[in-house]
Amino acid sequence: MGDASLGDHIQWTGDALVLLDQRVLPREERWVRCRTAGEAADAIRDMVVRGAPAIGIAAAYGLALAARGGEDAASASARLLAARPTAVNLRWAVERLLALPPEAWAAEAARLHREDVAINRALGEVGAALLPPAAVVYTHCNAGALATGGWGTALGVVRSAWEQGRLSRVYAGETRPWLQGARLTAYELARDGIPVTLVADVAAASVLASGRVQAVIVGADRVAANGDTANKVGTCGLAILAQHFRVPFYVAVPTSTLDPAAATGADIPVEERPAAEVLGYGAERWAAEVPVWNPAFDITPASCVTAWITERGLWRPPA
Amino acid sequence: MGDASLGDHIQWTGDALVLLDQRVLPREERWVRCRTAGEAADAIRDMVVRGAPAIGIAAAYGLALAARGGEDAASASARLLAARPTAVNLRWAVERLLALPPEAWAAEAARLHREDVAINRALGEVGAALLPPAAVVYTHCNAGALATGGWGTALGVVRSAWEQGRLSRVYAGETRPWLQGARLTAYELARDGIPVTLVADVAAASVLASGRVQAVIVGADRVAANGDTANKVGTCGLAILAQHFRVPFYVAVPTSTLDPAAATGADIPVEERPAAEVLGYGAERWAAEVPVWNPAFDITPASCVTAWITERGLWRPPA
Repeated sequence: MGDASLGDHIQWTGDALVLLDQRVLPREERWVRCRTAGEAADAIRDMVVRGAPAIGIAAAYGLALAARGGEDAASASARLLAARPTAVNLRWAVERLLALPPEAWAAEAARLHREDVAINRALGEVGAALLPPAAVVYTHCNAGALATGGWGTALGVVRSAWEQGRLSRVYAGETRPWLQGARLTAYELARDGIPVTLVADVAAASVLASGRVQAVIVGADRVAANGDTANKVGTCGLAILAQHFRVPFYVAVPTSTLDPAAATGADIPVEERPAAEVLGYGAERWAAEVPVWNPAFDITPASCVTAWITERGLWRPPA
Repeated sequence: MGDASLGDHIQWTGDALVLLDQRVLPREERWVRCRTAGEAADAIRDMVVRGAPAIGIAAAYGLALAARGGEDAASASARLLAARPTAVNLRWAVERLLALPPEAWAAEAARLHREDVAINRALGEVGAALLPPAAVVYTHCNAGALATGGWGTALGVVRSAWEQGRLSRVYAGETRPWLQGARLTAYELARDGIPVTLVADVAAASVLASGRVQAVIVGADRVAANGDTANKVGTCGLAILAQHFRVPFYVAVPTSTLDPAAATGADIPVEERPAAEVLGYGAERWAAEVPVWNPAFDITPASCVTAWITERGLWRPPA
């Protein structure tokens, strides 16, 4: 964890994929070592690693493990693809590797990892140029270094703006139920010395109504051809609030998150996660035993998005 | 706790105010005994008892304790009024008692307590009539029996609709940071056999977008003369979402929550609570040490409210 942009949370040792366990951050810096594609798939499913670009990279290394161990490519890739259904980067990365012979997978995974950081640096520059001086930004979930190969998407824009002296503060929604905002975004930004204020998700309207924020910036797990955007549950509501309060709402994504195969948001599967995530957290179980609905993502209609920030510039759905 | 509507969570023994400690529900049914007005004020400030009507009743019994103990009326009422700034019922109840001689306060507090239940039954009938058959309702925070003298305001409407066979399910937002939805609303409704599904607050847009809900119903802590409504933080965002998805948004309140002295929401003080509520919960501390903004309430603009449900029928701000 030497790099301020936390770019080394995914490590390839040549015979193992070593992941910083995001389930126990920031309390503990624990590492999980995967030696097979199945172990990599489990780590993705169990959210040791999360964030669309990061799970694409982890899946690519998972295939490299399969090649190294002489595992069957079809079953290894099927297991990786099934680990989490919503992010398209997972499929994109696996398909990119499958187009090459297995002996090339380890190098290609490393290339994809390095490329992702460069892509995030590029989209960070694109996004930073959209912000006014001394900008205050609101973000949701963690679209940071920890969600990518490094630097981040939404937080890549934040980091680029900070580097340019264009940013004064980030408001981070805590992002129940998994608390990516409270645990990961607050940690990442504080570690980099970027001023961050944590709020409960329910305070988003109060933050926006106060006029103190000039932009909302989030990442995404998949963007349909028409611009409908799948991202962490809560994003859609935040986009509607931003529209109501006339605050620009930006989605920062590598072009690998654009999915032309999904015509609209209705074509994007939304993962539902266990009730236990909502009935409590960690060792705390605070709710009575009642039914829970726990969708992990939601679909923000394209009409609520001001612009999509990519490494190639602003993207807009073809009219 | 014999009554299904949890009407006995505030008890007056003649020489003590005994409160069901809402901080540890539903895990534990612990009681807090107050013997002085100061102890009652502490219980209100520390949220042993919460909910605008309930803290009005508790404050009235607190004055009864002051009268019994020969405490100075001015300092006792000042301490009670300062316990929590946002709910107007606190001031309303204290002023109602102060208009009488101290020897009448205990009886008046008990009268106010009984009246509150009757008022909630009446507004429950008014609200239930607004719902379609087999209605599915979304609610936020806890505006239930536990927040009132009994029966509830938003949950009073739910209970009346359930009694009439007009309700099929309630979606309850968990209501971070204090988790009134997860801990209290889910508990109250499950205990009464009313079907409830718990969701993270961030899932509200997904619930509304799915079309499965026909009304959002919340309580309030204070309604300004123009209809701007102070309620638990998250209410304003929910109202904006309801408007976006064309779902009626109702505020269920006794007329004692209407505050003609506040011209607009800008005249209502919004309590800010400690950072610790957002940095974790109970024994769990999950976030790094970062700045927090933790407003306990927000102001929903009158334009986002479909109607205010009171014991006297629907209220609308004078044009």
